[in-house]
Amino acid sequence: MLCLLEGEGVARASSADLGALLDLSAHLIRKDISFFGGAGSAGAGYDVGRLKALIAEQLGFGREKRACIVGLGRLGSALLEYAVAVPQEGYRIVAGFDSNINRIETLSTAIDLFAVYEIVETLQRLQIELALIAVPAEHAQAVADRCCDGGVTGILNFAPMNIKPKNPGVFIRSMNVAGELRILTALSHVYLQSKHQ
Amino acid sequence: MLCLLEGEGVARASSADLGALLDLSAHLIRKDISFFGGAGSAGAGYDVGRLKALIAEQLGFGREKRACIVGLGRLGSALLEYAVAVPQEGYRIVAGFDSNINRIETLSTAIDLFAVYEIVETLQRLQIELALIAVPAEHAQAVADRCCDGGVTGILNFAPMNIKPKNPGVFIRSMNVAGELRILTALSHVYLQSKHQ
Repeated sequence: MLCLLEGEGVARASSADLGALLDLSAHLIRKDISFFGGAGSAGAGYDVGRLKALIAEQLGFGREKRACIVGLGRLGSALLEYAVAVPQEGYRIVAGFDSNINRIETLSTAIDLFAVYEIVETLQRLQIELALIAVPAEHAQAVADRCCDGGVTGILNFAPMNIKPKNPGVFIRSMNVAGELRILTALSHVYLQSKHQ
Repeated sequence: MLCLLEGEGVARASSADLGALLDLSAHLIRKDISFFGGAGSAGAGYDVGRLKALIAEQLGFGREKRACIVGLGRLGSALLEYAVAVPQEGYRIVAGFDSNINRIETLSTAIDLFAVYEIVETLQRLQIELALIAVPAEHAQAVADRCCDGGVTGILNFAPMNIKPKNPGVFIRSMNVAGELRILTALSHVYLQSKHQ
């Protein structure tokens, strides 16, 4: 959000401006920002560039993280293609893994691809910290366990299955398009039923 | 999750089984299921097929929803390609929209594509209920407003920007790969700092 403001040439923003953009109260914004310390007073608004640098430092965004994609089926290869085409701030996809050797040999991409049996040593060797898991649901937990063994500290799970970290200090977030659409369907259904009562 | 159990040939599951899979207590599972009513007793375990049908009916999953993708850049066209290749239960992508007419004319897909200026009437005509928004952040709110005008009740927002529904009864969920990876980075960073203190 601060990047967007910077892109639009906004140099200073008040807590009320930031709150309106984030749908939070100006009070909460000031409290959160003061938690980081050193962002200056909100009286004249925050310096957008300085605030961004401060948050990046405090939350560990300063250093680019190395990431990989595990599972190169339809979804995984779309993610890979997207990552190559649109480089993101903060992380870089440096490897892809699949259990199917033929698929690895036929996919043409600028990113190094490996067989999944090599995953633990490859994650360690390339010092990969983040894994995007796009394997079938029934393999997601086993793949996540091997990512933990390889030293990954964050997993973004695209499989429609709850998975748990094998070790403390590994964090997992899930993304599931079909699941989100089901939630939207249920919300709308319950809303309409409540209106008709 | 019930689909997965069904696929594995599991006919009955206890509240403890379901709780373990969902990382919830058996008590909470029983309470949630009894809220729907008519699922039978948990004494001998729930009938997986019957429970699935009951939940589907109560949450409005019975009828297939018509969905569209707005914004056919890298991400939107990957979503479109994925939707064509892997049909999902509960919804079907029936249209795509983009502001760039050339892009619409050059994309080859089995799904009907339209210019974004036609979106309101097209959503109404095709009775589309769900919209996946994959436009640049600065256009996301305007596109969401037009989706609301077209009668959509659920929006899945892939743009890295908070958007709000224009009308009551429209629900929005957000998916943002870069944002999720930033959250994972921050969680790991804060965890490691707490360990070093």
